Amino acid sequence: MEIIKSIAEMQKKSDSLRQQGKRIGVVPTMGYLHAGHTSLIANARDRADVVVTTIFVNPAQFGPGEDFERYPRDFEHDRSEAANAGSDMIFSPDVREMYPESFGTYVEVEDVSKILEGKFRPTHFRGVTTVVMKLLNITKPHVGVFGQKDAQQAFLIQKMVQELNLDLSVVVAPIVREPDGLAMSSRNVYLSPSERERATALYRSLALVEELIRNGERSVTTLRAAMEQRLASAQPKQVDYIAFVRPDVFQEIERIEPPSVLVALAARFGSTRLIDNVLITVPS
Amino acid sequence: MEIIKSIAEMQKKSDSLRQQGKRIGVVPTMGYLHAGHTSLIANARDRADVVVTTIFVNPAQFGPGEDFERYPRDFEHDRSEAANAGSDMIFSPDVREMYPESFGTYVEVEDVSKILEGKFRPTHFRGVTTVVMKLLNITKPHVGVFGQKDAQQAFLIQKMVQELNLDLSVVVAPIVREPDGLAMSSRNVYLSPSERERATALYRSLALVEELIRNGERSVTTLRAAMEQRLASAQPKQVDYIAFVRPDVFQEIERIEPPSVLVALAARFGSTRLIDNVLITVPS
Repeated sequence: MEIIKSIAEMQKKSDSLRQQGKRIGVVPTMGYLHAGHTSLIANARDRADVVVTTIFVNPAQFGPGEDFERYPRDFEHDRSEAANAGSDMIFSPDVREMYPESFGTYVEVEDVSKILEGKFRPTHFRGVTTVVMKLLNITKPHVGVFGQKDAQQAFLIQKMVQELNLDLSVVVAPIVREPDGLAMSSRNVYLSPSERERATALYRSLALVEELIRNGERSVTTLRAAMEQRLASAQPKQVDYIAFVRPDVFQEIERIEPPSVLVALAARFGSTRLIDNVLITVPS
Repeated sequence: MEIIKSIAEMQKKSDSLRQQGKRIGVVPTMGYLHAGHTSLIANARDRADVVVTTIFVNPAQFGPGEDFERYPRDFEHDRSEAANAGSDMIFSPDVREMYPESFGTYVEVEDVSKILEGKFRPTHFRGVTTVVMKLLNITKPHVGVFGQKDAQQAFLIQKMVQELNLDLSVVVAPIVREPDGLAMSSRNVYLSPSERERATALYRSLALVEELIRNGERSVTTLRAAMEQRLASAQPKQVDYIAFVRPDVFQEIERIEPPSVLVALAARFGSTRLIDNVLITVPS
Protein backbone atom coordinates (compact mmCIF):
# COMPACT_ATOMS: atom_id res chain seq x y z
CA MET A 1 0.00 0.00 0.00
CA GLU A 2 1.55 3.22 -1.20
CA ILE A 3 0.83 6.38 0.82
CA ILE A 4 1.14 9.70 -1.04
CA LYS A 5 0.78 13.06 0.67
CA SER A 6 2.14 15.50 -1.93
CA ILE A 7 -0.16 16.85 -4.66
CA ALA A 8 2.66 17.06 -7.22
CA GLU A 9 3.79 13.51 -6.46
CA MET A 10 0.25 12.14 -6.87
CA GLN A 11 -0.16 13.94 -10.21
CA LYS A 12 3.17 12.59 -11.43
CA LYS A 13 2.20 9.08 -10.32
CA SER A 14 -1.16 9.26 -12.10
CA ASP A 15 0.46 10.62 -15.26
CA SER A 16 2.92 7.78 -15.28
CA LEU A 17 0.17 5.18 -14.72
CA ARG A 18 -1.85 6.67 -17.55
CA GLN A 19 1.16 6.62 -19.86
CA GLN A 20 1.53 2.91 -19.06
CA GLY A 21 -2.08 2.48 -20.18
CA LYS A 22 -3.32 1.67 -16.67
CA ARG A 23 -6.89 2.46 -15.74
CA ILE A 24 -7.15 4.51 -12.51
CA GLY A 25 -10.11 4.33 -10.13
CA VAL A 26 -10.55 6.77 -7.27
CA VAL A 27 -12.67 6.63 -4.11
CA PRO A 28 -12.77 10.02 -2.38
CA THR A 29 -13.44 9.70 1.37
CA MET A 30 -13.03 11.65 4.59
CA GLY A 31 -11.50 8.58 6.22
CA TYR A 32 -12.69 6.65 9.30
CA LEU A 33 -13.50 3.94 6.82
CA HIS A 34 -16.42 1.59 7.38
CA ALA A 35 -18.07 -1.13 5.30
CA GLY A 36 -19.77 1.52 3.17
CA HIS A 37 -16.40 2.90 2.09
CA THR A 38 -14.82 -0.51 1.60
CA SER A 39 -17.69 -1.49 -0.69
CA LEU A 40 -16.82 1.56 -2.82
CA ILE A 41 -13.18 0.50 -2.91
CA ALA A 42 -14.16 -3.04 -3.91
CA ASN A 43 -16.40 -1.55 -6.61
CA ALA A 44 -13.51 0.55 -7.96
CA ARG A 45 -11.26 -2.55 -7.77
CA ASP A 46 -13.53 -4.23 -10.34
CA ARG A 47 -13.32 -1.28 -12.72
CA ALA A 48 -9.68 -0.20 -12.60
CA ASP A 49 -6.09 -1.44 -12.67
CA VAL A 50 -5.03 0.88 -9.89
CA VAL A 51 -7.33 2.01 -7.06
CA VAL A 52 -6.57 5.23 -5.20
CA THR A 53 -8.46 5.94 -1.97
CA THR A 54 -8.28 9.58 -0.96
CA ILE A 55 -8.53 10.39 2.74
CA PHE A 56 -9.07 14.05 3.48
CA VAL A 57 -11.35 15.65 6.05
CA ASN A 58 -12.34 18.65 3.94
CA PRO A 59 -12.79 21.82 6.00
CA ALA A 60 -14.55 23.59 3.10
CA GLN A 61 -17.62 21.36 3.40
CA PHE A 62 -18.18 21.96 7.11
CA GLY A 63 -20.14 25.01 8.20
CA PRO A 64 -19.45 27.12 11.30
CA GLY A 65 -20.45 25.13 14.39
CA GLU A 66 -20.42 21.82 12.51
CA ASP A 67 -18.22 18.89 13.50
CA PHE A 68 -15.01 19.51 11.53
CA GLU A 69 -12.81 19.53 14.64
CA ARG A 70 -14.30 16.43 16.23
CA TYR A 71 -14.86 14.50 12.99
CA PRO A 72 -13.39 11.03 13.75
CA ARG A 73 -9.95 10.24 12.33
CA ASP A 74 -7.89 7.03 12.49
CA PHE A 75 -5.26 6.76 9.79
CA GLU A 76 -3.81 3.39 10.82
CA HIS A 77 -7.26 1.82 10.80
CA ASP A 78 -7.98 3.41 7.40
CA ARG A 79 -4.72 2.15 5.96
CA SER A 80 -5.50 -1.45 6.80
CA GLU A 81 -9.18 -1.24 5.84
CA ALA A 82 -8.30 0.30 2.46
CA ALA A 83 -5.62 -2.33 1.84
CA ASN A 84 -7.96 -5.20 2.76
CA ALA A 85 -10.61 -3.84 0.41
CA GLY A 86 -8.14 -3.77 -2.48
CA SER A 87 -6.86 -0.20 -2.60
CA ASP A 88 -3.37 0.15 -4.08
CA MET A 89 -2.75 3.66 -2.87
CA ILE A 90 -3.89 6.22 -0.34
CA PHE A 91 -3.71 9.90 -1.22
CA SER A 92 -3.88 11.88 1.99
CA PRO A 93 -2.87 15.51 1.54
CA ASP A 94 -2.22 18.17 4.13
CA VAL A 95 -4.94 20.79 4.70
CA ARG A 96 -2.49 23.63 4.10
CA GLU A 97 -1.38 22.22 0.77
CA MET A 98 -5.01 21.78 -0.33
CA TYR A 99 -6.12 25.19 0.94
CA PRO A 100 -3.28 27.73 1.08
CA GLU A 101 -4.11 30.91 2.98
CA SER A 102 -5.17 32.97 -0.05
CA PHE A 103 -7.46 30.20 -1.38
CA GLY A 104 -10.59 31.50 -3.07
CA THR A 105 -11.65 29.42 -6.09
CA TYR A 106 -14.89 27.46 -5.89
CA VAL A 107 -16.94 25.18 -8.10
CA GLU A 108 -20.65 25.58 -7.55
CA VAL A 109 -23.63 23.79 -9.05
CA GLU A 110 -26.62 26.12 -9.03
CA ASP A 111 -30.11 25.33 -7.75
CA VAL A 112 -29.79 21.70 -6.59
CA SER A 113 -26.97 22.71 -4.19
CA LYS A 114 -29.42 25.02 -2.40
CA ILE A 115 -32.25 22.60 -1.57
CA LEU A 116 -32.58 19.85 1.13
CA GLU A 117 -29.07 19.41 2.59
CA GLY A 118 -28.09 22.73 1.02
CA LYS A 119 -30.83 24.53 2.94
CA PHE A 120 -29.47 23.30 6.27
CA ARG A 121 -25.81 23.50 5.26
CA PRO A 122 -25.56 26.57 2.99
CA THR A 123 -21.88 26.29 1.93
CA HIS A 124 -21.64 22.48 2.23
CA PHE A 125 -22.02 21.50 -1.40
CA ARG A 126 -19.79 24.28 -2.66
CA GLY A 127 -17.12 22.75 -0.43
CA VAL A 128 -17.87 19.26 -1.73
CA THR A 129 -17.81 20.08 -5.44
CA THR A 130 -14.66 22.17 -5.00
CA VAL A 131 -12.70 19.47 -3.17
CA VAL A 132 -13.90 16.74 -5.52
CA MET A 133 -12.78 18.84 -8.50
CA LYS A 134 -9.38 19.24 -6.83
CA LEU A 135 -9.09 15.54 -5.96
CA LEU A 136 -10.04 14.52 -9.50
CA ASN A 137 -7.48 16.91 -10.99
CA ILE A 138 -4.86 15.46 -8.66
CA THR A 139 -5.60 11.74 -9.02
CA LYS A 140 -6.66 11.89 -12.71
CA PRO A 141 -8.92 8.83 -12.58
CA HIS A 142 -10.76 7.08 -15.41
CA VAL A 143 -13.51 6.23 -12.94
CA GLY A 144 -14.64 7.72 -9.64
CA VAL A 145 -16.84 5.78 -7.22
CA PHE A 146 -19.20 7.63 -4.86
CA GLY A 147 -21.83 6.43 -2.41
CA GLN A 148 -25.60 6.62 -2.83
CA LYS A 149 -25.81 7.37 0.91
CA ASP A 150 -25.04 11.00 -0.01
CA ALA A 151 -27.60 11.02 -2.81
CA GLN A 152 -27.70 14.77 -3.36
CA GLN A 153 -23.90 14.95 -3.34
CA ALA A 154 -23.72 12.11 -5.87
CA PHE A 155 -26.16 13.94 -8.14
CA LEU A 156 -24.20 17.20 -7.89
CA ILE A 157 -20.88 15.49 -8.60
CA GLN A 158 -22.33 13.78 -11.67
CA LYS A 159 -23.69 17.12 -12.89
CA MET A 160 -20.38 18.88 -12.26
CA VAL A 161 -18.37 16.18 -14.03
CA GLN A 162 -20.68 16.27 -17.02
CA GLU A 163 -21.03 20.05 -17.32
CA LEU A 164 -17.36 20.90 -16.76
CA ASN A 165 -16.35 18.08 -19.14
CA LEU A 166 -14.20 16.10 -16.74
CA ASP A 167 -13.27 13.03 -18.74
CA LEU A 168 -14.14 10.23 -16.31
CA SER A 169 -17.00 7.87 -15.47
CA VAL A 170 -18.85 8.45 -12.23
CA VAL A 171 -20.23 5.36 -10.52
CA VAL A 172 -22.71 5.64 -7.67
CA ALA A 173 -22.71 2.53 -5.47
CA PRO A 174 -25.48 1.32 -3.15
CA ILE A 175 -25.84 2.13 0.54
CA VAL A 176 -24.40 -0.40 2.97
CA ARG A 177 -26.44 -0.91 6.15
CA GLU A 178 -25.92 -2.36 9.61
CA PRO A 179 -27.90 -5.60 10.26
CA ASP A 180 -30.69 -3.53 11.84
CA GLY A 181 -30.92 -1.24 8.80
CA LEU A 182 -29.00 1.84 10.00
CA ALA A 183 -26.99 3.23 7.08
CA MET A 184 -23.23 3.03 7.63
CA SER A 185 -21.78 6.43 8.50
CA SER A 186 -18.60 7.65 10.16
CA ARG A 187 -20.87 9.80 12.31
CA ASN A 188 -22.68 6.76 13.84
CA VAL A 189 -19.81 6.65 16.33
CA TYR A 190 -21.20 9.83 17.91
CA LEU A 191 -24.48 8.09 18.89
CA SER A 192 -25.19 7.09 22.50
CA PRO A 193 -26.58 3.53 22.90
CA SER A 194 -30.13 4.89 23.15
CA GLU A 195 -29.68 7.19 20.16
CA ARG A 196 -28.12 4.33 18.18
CA GLU A 197 -31.20 2.19 18.88
CA ARG A 198 -33.69 4.91 18.03
CA ALA A 199 -31.77 5.93 14.87
CA THR A 200 -32.98 2.74 13.18
CA ALA A 201 -36.28 4.61 12.76
CA LEU A 202 -34.71 6.37 9.74
CA TYR A 203 -34.43 3.12 7.84
CA ARG A 204 -37.73 1.79 9.16
CA SER A 205 -39.54 4.91 7.89
CA LEU A 206 -37.91 4.44 4.47
CA ALA A 207 -38.89 0.75 4.41
CA LEU A 208 -42.43 1.79 5.31
CA VAL A 209 -42.69 4.32 2.47
CA GLU A 210 -41.36 1.75 0.05
CA GLU A 211 -44.05 -0.69 1.14
CA LEU A 212 -46.82 1.92 0.92
CA ILE A 213 -45.75 2.90 -2.60
CA ARG A 214 -45.57 -0.75 -3.62
CA ASN A 215 -49.13 -1.08 -2.32
CA GLY A 216 -50.26 1.77 -4.57
CA GLU A 217 -50.14 4.90 -2.43
CA ARG A 218 -49.23 7.91 -4.64
CA SER A 219 -49.91 10.93 -2.44
CA VAL A 220 -46.76 12.57 -1.10
CA THR A 221 -48.80 14.17 1.71
CA THR A 222 -50.07 10.78 2.89
CA LEU A 223 -46.68 9.13 2.55
CA ARG A 224 -44.88 11.94 4.39
CA ALA A 225 -47.40 11.80 7.24
CA ALA A 226 -46.86 8.05 7.62
CA MET A 227 -43.09 8.53 7.73
CA GLU A 228 -43.37 11.37 10.24
CA GLN A 229 -45.43 9.18 12.51
CA ARG A 230 -42.95 6.31 12.29
CA LEU A 231 -40.05 8.70 12.98
CA ALA A 232 -41.83 10.43 15.87
CA SER A 233 -42.02 7.17 17.79
CA ALA A 234 -38.19 7.23 17.94
CA GLN A 235 -38.18 10.75 19.40
CA PRO A 236 -35.54 12.38 17.22
CA LYS A 237 -34.37 15.79 18.43
CA GLN A 238 -35.42 17.19 15.07
CA VAL A 239 -36.42 16.03 11.60
CA ASP A 240 -34.76 18.46 9.14
CA TYR A 241 -36.62 17.21 6.08
CA ILE A 242 -38.41 14.32 4.43
CA ALA A 243 -38.19 14.81 0.67
CA PHE A 244 -39.65 13.08 -2.37
CA VAL A 245 -37.38 13.71 -5.32
CA ARG A 246 -37.36 12.99 -9.04
CA PRO A 247 -33.95 11.33 -9.33
CA ASP A 248 -33.01 12.41 -12.88
CA VAL A 249 -33.27 16.16 -12.13
CA PHE A 250 -33.21 16.10 -8.32
CA GLN A 251 -36.36 18.16 -7.91
CA GLU A 252 -39.00 17.68 -5.24
CA ILE A 253 -42.31 16.30 -6.44
CA GLU A 254 -45.88 16.49 -5.17
CA ARG A 255 -47.10 13.16 -6.48
CA ILE A 256 -45.35 9.83 -6.91
CA GLU A 257 -44.92 8.99 -10.59
CA PRO A 258 -43.10 6.33 -12.62
CA PRO A 259 -40.39 5.37 -13.21
CA SER A 260 -38.88 6.03 -9.79
CA VAL A 261 -38.72 8.27 -6.74
CA LEU A 262 -35.93 9.01 -4.31
CA VAL A 263 -37.08 9.45 -0.72
CA ALA A 264 -34.45 11.26 1.35
CA LEU A 265 -34.44 12.45 4.93
CA ALA A 266 -32.28 14.07 7.57
CA ALA A 267 -32.85 13.93 11.32
CA ARG A 268 -30.96 14.66 14.50
CA PHE A 269 -30.49 12.37 17.46
CA GLY A 270 -28.85 14.33 20.24
CA SER A 271 -26.11 16.38 18.59
CA THR A 272 -25.72 13.93 15.71
CA ARG A 273 -27.24 14.68 12.33
CA LEU A 274 -27.93 11.63 10.17
CA ILE A 275 -29.12 11.28 6.58
CA ASP A 276 -30.53 8.35 4.69
CA ASN A 277 -32.46 7.64 1.50
CA VAL A 278 -33.98 4.97 -0.68
CA LEU A 279 -34.53 4.83 -4.42
CA ILE A 280 -37.92 3.29 -5.13
CA THR A 281 -39.08 1.91 -8.46
CA VAL A 282 -42.61 3.09 -9.30
CA PRO A 283 -44.53 0.78 -11.66
CA SER A 284 -46.52 2.55 -14.39
CA MET B 1 -4.89 21.51 -40.03
CA GLU B 2 -7.30 19.27 -38.20
CA ILE B 3 -10.67 20.73 -37.23
CA ILE B 4 -12.47 19.07 -34.31
CA LYS B 5 -15.97 20.05 -33.22
CA SER B 6 -16.98 17.22 -30.88
CA ILE B 7 -15.99 17.34 -27.21
CA ALA B 8 -15.62 13.56 -26.94
CA GLU B 9 -13.49 13.43 -30.08
CA MET B 10 -11.16 16.15 -28.79
CA GLN B 11 -10.75 14.36 -25.45
CA LYS B 12 -9.98 11.10 -27.21
CA LYS B 13 -7.46 12.84 -29.46
CA SER B 14 -5.73 14.50 -26.48
CA ASP B 15 -5.64 11.22 -24.57
CA SER B 16 -4.05 9.48 -27.50
CA LEU B 17 -1.46 12.27 -27.95
CA ARG B 18 -0.61 12.09 -24.24
CA GLN B 19 -0.23 8.32 -24.42
CA GLN B 20 2.23 8.84 -27.27
CA GLY B 21 4.20 11.13 -24.95
CA LYS B 22 3.37 14.26 -26.96
CA ARG B 23 3.26 17.62 -25.21
CA ILE B 24 0.02 19.51 -25.88
CA GLY B 25 -0.23 23.31 -25.95
CA VAL B 26 -3.56 25.12 -26.07
CA VAL B 27 -4.48 28.69 -27.00
CA PRO B 28 -8.09 29.47 -26.06
CA THR B 29 -9.59 32.22 -28.23
CA MET B 30 -12.95 33.62 -29.29
CA GLY B 31 -11.75 33.61 -32.89
CA TYR B 32 -11.46 36.55 -35.31
CA LEU B 33 -7.73 36.02 -34.93
CA HIS B 34 -5.32 38.93 -35.14
CA ALA B 35 -1.57 39.29 -34.58
CA GLY B 36 -2.11 39.15 -30.81
CA HIS B 37 -3.63 35.68 -31.10
CA THR B 38 -1.09 34.43 -33.61
CA SER B 39 1.73 35.50 -31.26
CA LEU B 40 0.12 33.26 -28.60
CA ILE B 41 -0.03 30.38 -31.08
CA ALA B 42 3.64 30.90 -32.01
CA ASN B 43 4.47 30.99 -28.29
CA ALA B 44 2.68 27.67 -27.74
CA ARG B 45 4.42 26.26 -30.83
CA ASP B 46 7.77 26.75 -29.02
CA ARG B 47 6.55 24.89 -25.94
CA ALA B 48 4.58 21.94 -27.27
CA ASP B 49 4.60 19.13 -29.82
CA VAL B 50 0.98 19.69 -30.74
CA VAL B 51 -0.74 23.09 -30.64
CA VAL B 52 -4.53 23.27 -30.32
CA THR B 53 -6.24 26.61 -30.93
CA THR B 54 -9.75 26.73 -29.51
CA ILE B 55 -12.25 29.01 -31.21
CA PHE B 56 -15.42 29.54 -29.24
CA VAL B 57 -17.41 32.74 -28.72
CA ASN B 58 -18.44 32.02 -25.15
CA PRO B 59 -21.94 33.30 -24.34
CA ALA B 60 -21.36 32.84 -20.58
CA GLN B 61 -18.84 35.69 -20.48
CA PHE B 62 -21.10 38.26 -22.14
CA GLY B 63 -23.57 40.21 -20.01
CA PRO B 64 -27.07 41.26 -21.07
CA GLY B 65 -26.78 44.08 -23.62
CA GLU B 66 -23.16 43.26 -24.43
CA ASP B 67 -21.92 42.35 -27.90
CA PHE B 68 -22.31 38.54 -27.99
CA GLU B 69 -24.58 38.61 -31.05
CA ARG B 70 -22.48 41.01 -33.08
CA TYR B 71 -19.07 39.73 -31.90
CA PRO B 72 -17.09 39.33 -35.15
CA ARG B 73 -16.69 35.79 -36.52
CA ASP B 74 -14.77 34.54 -39.57
CA PHE B 75 -13.90 30.86 -39.43
CA GLU B 76 -12.13 30.62 -42.80
CA HIS B 77 -9.87 33.54 -41.92
CA ASP B 78 -9.18 31.97 -38.50
CA ARG B 79 -8.35 28.61 -40.02
CA SER B 80 -5.67 30.07 -42.27
CA GLU B 81 -4.29 32.44 -39.61
CA ALA B 82 -4.02 29.61 -37.06
CA ALA B 83 -2.34 27.33 -39.62
CA ASN B 84 0.15 30.01 -40.64
CA ALA B 85 1.03 30.65 -37.00
CA GLY B 86 1.77 26.97 -36.44
CA SER B 87 -1.41 25.53 -34.97
CA ASP B 88 -1.93 21.82 -35.65
CA MET B 89 -5.55 21.71 -34.69
CA ILE B 90 -8.61 23.87 -34.16
CA PHE B 91 -11.17 22.86 -31.55
CA SER B 92 -14.39 24.70 -32.31
CA PRO B 93 -17.37 23.28 -30.43
CA ASP B 94 -21.04 24.02 -30.81
CA VAL B 95 -22.67 26.31 -28.21
CA ARG B 96 -25.33 23.72 -27.46
CA GLU B 97 -22.79 21.00 -26.79
CA MET B 98 -20.84 23.32 -24.48
CA TYR B 99 -23.93 24.63 -22.69
CA PRO B 100 -26.84 22.20 -22.76
CA GLU B 101 -30.16 23.67 -21.65
CA SER B 102 -29.95 22.56 -18.02
CA PHE B 103 -26.38 23.89 -17.62
CA GLY B 104 -25.66 25.30 -14.17
CA THR B 105 -22.11 24.58 -12.96
CA TYR B 106 -19.72 27.49 -12.56
CA VAL B 107 -16.15 28.05 -11.44
CA GLU B 108 -15.69 31.31 -9.62
CA VAL B 109 -12.63 33.01 -8.19
CA GLU B 110 -13.66 35.21 -5.28
CA ASP B 111 -12.69 38.85 -4.72
CA VAL B 112 -10.46 39.62 -7.73
CA SER B 113 -13.32 38.64 -10.09
CA LYS B 114 -15.43 41.46 -8.60
CA ILE B 115 -13.10 44.46 -9.06
CA LEU B 116 -12.20 46.55 -12.15
CA GLU B 117 -13.59 44.63 -15.15
CA GLY B 118 -15.73 42.60 -12.74
CA LYS B 119 -17.42 45.77 -11.45
CA PHE B 120 -18.51 46.76 -14.95
CA ARG B 121 -19.19 43.20 -16.12
CA PRO B 122 -20.56 41.36 -13.05
CA THR B 123 -20.83 37.81 -14.48
CA HIS B 124 -18.00 38.15 -17.01
CA PHE B 125 -15.20 36.42 -15.12
CA ARG B 126 -17.42 33.62 -13.88
CA GLY B 127 -18.12 32.93 -17.55
CA VAL B 128 -14.43 33.09 -18.39
CA THR B 129 -13.18 30.78 -15.64
CA THR B 130 -15.98 28.32 -16.34
CA VAL B 131 -15.31 28.07 -20.07
CA VAL B 132 -11.55 27.91 -19.58
CA MET B 133 -12.01 25.07 -17.08
CA LYS B 134 -14.17 23.27 -19.66
CA LEU B 135 -11.73 23.88 -22.52
CA LEU B 136 -8.78 22.68 -20.42
CA ASN B 137 -10.68 19.52 -19.42
CA ILE B 138 -11.48 18.92 -23.08
CA THR B 139 -8.07 19.65 -24.64
CA LYS B 140 -5.96 18.32 -21.71
CA PRO B 141 -2.92 20.49 -22.40
CA HIS B 142 0.47 20.49 -20.70
CA VAL B 143 0.66 24.23 -21.31
CA GLY B 144 -1.95 26.93 -21.89
CA VAL B 145 -1.01 30.30 -23.40
CA PHE B 146 -3.04 33.40 -22.56
CA GLY B 147 -2.60 37.09 -23.42
CA GLN B 148 -1.46 39.85 -21.07
CA LYS B 149 -3.95 42.14 -22.85
CA ASP B 150 -6.62 40.65 -20.56
CA ALA B 151 -4.45 41.06 -17.47
CA GLN B 152 -7.16 40.46 -14.89
CA GLN B 153 -8.39 37.41 -16.77
CA ALA B 154 -4.84 36.04 -16.95
CA PHE B 155 -4.44 36.51 -13.20
CA LEU B 156 -7.75 34.76 -12.47
CA ILE B 157 -6.95 31.84 -14.77
CA GLN B 158 -3.57 31.36 -13.10
CA LYS B 159 -5.24 31.45 -9.68
CA MET B 160 -7.92 28.98 -10.77
CA VAL B 161 -5.40 26.57 -12.29
CA GLN B 162 -3.26 26.66 -9.17
CA GLU B 163 -6.05 26.42 -6.60
CA LEU B 164 -8.07 23.72 -8.35
CA ASN B 165 -4.84 21.78 -9.05
CA LEU B 166 -5.11 21.64 -12.81
CA ASP B 167 -1.87 20.00 -13.86
CA LEU B 168 -0.62 22.38 -16.54
CA SER B 169 1.64 25.40 -16.96
CA VAL B 170 0.03 28.74 -17.67
CA VAL B 171 2.02 31.14 -19.83
CA VAL B 172 1.01 34.79 -20.13
CA ALA B 173 2.38 36.35 -23.32
CA PRO B 174 2.94 40.07 -24.03
CA ILE B 175 0.47 42.45 -25.65
CA VAL B 176 0.85 42.95 -29.40
CA ARG B 177 0.19 46.50 -30.61
CA GLU B 178 -0.57 48.26 -33.88
CA PRO B 179 2.26 50.52 -35.15
CA ASP B 180 0.57 53.50 -33.46
CA GLY B 181 0.35 51.70 -30.11
CA LEU B 182 -3.29 50.57 -30.06
CA ALA B 183 -3.47 47.11 -28.48
CA MET B 184 -4.66 44.42 -30.89
CA SER B 185 -8.27 43.44 -30.21
CA SER B 186 -11.02 41.75 -32.18
CA ARG B 187 -13.21 44.65 -31.08
CA ASN B 188 -11.06 47.26 -32.86
CA VAL B 189 -13.06 46.44 -35.98
CA TYR B 190 -16.05 48.20 -34.40
CA LEU B 191 -14.25 51.57 -34.31
CA SER B 192 -15.10 54.35 -36.80
CA PRO B 193 -12.04 56.05 -38.41
CA SER B 194 -12.25 58.91 -35.91
CA GLU B 195 -12.68 56.59 -32.92
CA ARG B 196 -9.79 54.43 -34.17
CA GLU B 197 -7.57 57.52 -34.27
CA ARG B 198 -8.62 58.76 -30.82
CA ALA B 199 -8.33 55.27 -29.27
CA THR B 200 -4.54 55.55 -29.45
CA ALA B 201 -4.87 57.79 -26.38
CA LEU B 202 -5.18 54.59 -24.29
CA TYR B 203 -1.67 53.55 -25.15
CA ARG B 204 -0.34 57.11 -25.03
CA SER B 205 -1.67 57.53 -21.48
CA LEU B 206 0.02 54.26 -20.46
CA ALA B 207 3.29 55.35 -22.08
CA LEU B 208 2.99 58.63 -20.18
CA VAL B 209 2.49 56.96 -16.80
CA GLU B 210 5.46 54.69 -17.49
CA GLU B 211 7.62 57.74 -18.19
CA LEU B 212 6.42 59.59 -15.08
CA ILE B 213 7.15 56.55 -12.89
CA ARG B 214 10.58 56.19 -14.47
CA ASN B 215 11.18 59.85 -13.62
CA GLY B 216 10.37 59.15 -9.96
CA GLU B 217 6.69 60.01 -9.52
CA ARG B 218 5.17 57.69 -6.88
CA SER B 219 1.78 59.24 -6.12
CA VAL B 220 -1.13 57.36 -7.65
CA THR B 221 -3.29 60.49 -7.38
CA THR B 222 -0.82 62.52 -9.44
CA LEU B 223 -0.30 59.74 -11.97
CA ARG B 224 -4.01 59.13 -12.40
CA ALA B 225 -4.65 62.84 -12.95
CA ALA B 226 -1.98 62.97 -15.65
CA MET B 227 -3.50 59.96 -17.40
CA GLU B 228 -7.01 61.38 -17.16
CA GLN B 229 -5.84 64.58 -18.78
CA ARG B 230 -4.12 62.71 -21.60
CA LEU B 231 -7.21 60.57 -22.16
CA ALA B 232 -9.61 63.55 -22.01
CA SER B 233 -7.92 65.14 -25.02
CA ALA B 234 -9.14 62.13 -27.06
CA GLN B 235 -12.74 62.65 -25.94
CA PRO B 236 -13.67 59.10 -25.00
CA LYS B 237 -17.37 58.55 -24.36
CA GLN B 238 -16.49 57.28 -20.90
CA VAL B 239 -13.45 56.15 -18.90
CA ASP B 240 -14.60 53.15 -16.82
CA TYR B 241 -11.48 52.98 -14.67
CA ILE B 242 -7.78 53.71 -14.41
CA ALA B 243 -6.30 51.28 -11.90
CA PHE B 244 -2.91 50.84 -10.26
CA VAL B 245 -2.53 47.22 -9.25
CA ARG B 246 0.00 45.09 -7.37
CA PRO B 247 0.51 42.32 -9.94
CA ASP B 248 1.21 39.38 -7.58
CA VAL B 249 -2.11 39.70 -5.72
CA PHE B 250 -4.07 41.89 -8.15
CA GLN B 251 -5.06 44.47 -5.56
CA GLU B 252 -5.30 48.19 -6.12
CA ILE B 253 -2.62 50.28 -4.45
CA GLU B 254 -2.41 53.90 -3.27
CA ARG B 255 1.29 54.41 -3.76
CA ILE B 256 3.71 53.08 -6.37
CA GLU B 257 6.18 50.66 -4.80
CA PRO B 258 8.84 48.23 -6.05
CA PRO B 259 9.16 45.80 -7.65
CA SER B 260 6.39 46.51 -10.18
CA VAL B 261 2.97 47.96 -10.83
CA LEU B 262 0.32 47.07 -13.36
CA VAL B 263 -1.56 50.08 -14.75
CA ALA B 264 -4.84 49.00 -16.34
CA LEU B 265 -7.67 50.98 -17.90
CA ALA B 266 -10.97 50.63 -19.69
CA ALA B 267 -12.64 53.29 -21.81
CA ARG B 268 -15.41 53.59 -24.34
CA PHE B 269 -15.23 55.16 -27.77
CA GLY B 270 -18.71 55.29 -29.21
CA SER B 271 -20.31 51.92 -28.42
CA THR B 272 -16.94 50.14 -28.26
CA ARG B 273 -15.37 49.33 -24.92
CA LEU B 274 -11.58 48.90 -25.01
CA ILE B 275 -9.10 47.79 -22.36
CA ASP B 276 -5.34 48.07 -22.17
CA ASN B 277 -2.57 47.81 -19.59
CA VAL B 278 1.14 48.03 -19.01
CA LEU B 279 3.35 46.28 -16.48
CA ILE B 280 5.92 48.75 -15.18
CA THR B 281 9.11 47.86 -13.29
CA VAL B 282 9.59 50.08 -10.26
CA PRO B 283 13.22 50.47 -9.15
CA SER B 284 13.82 50.33 -5.38
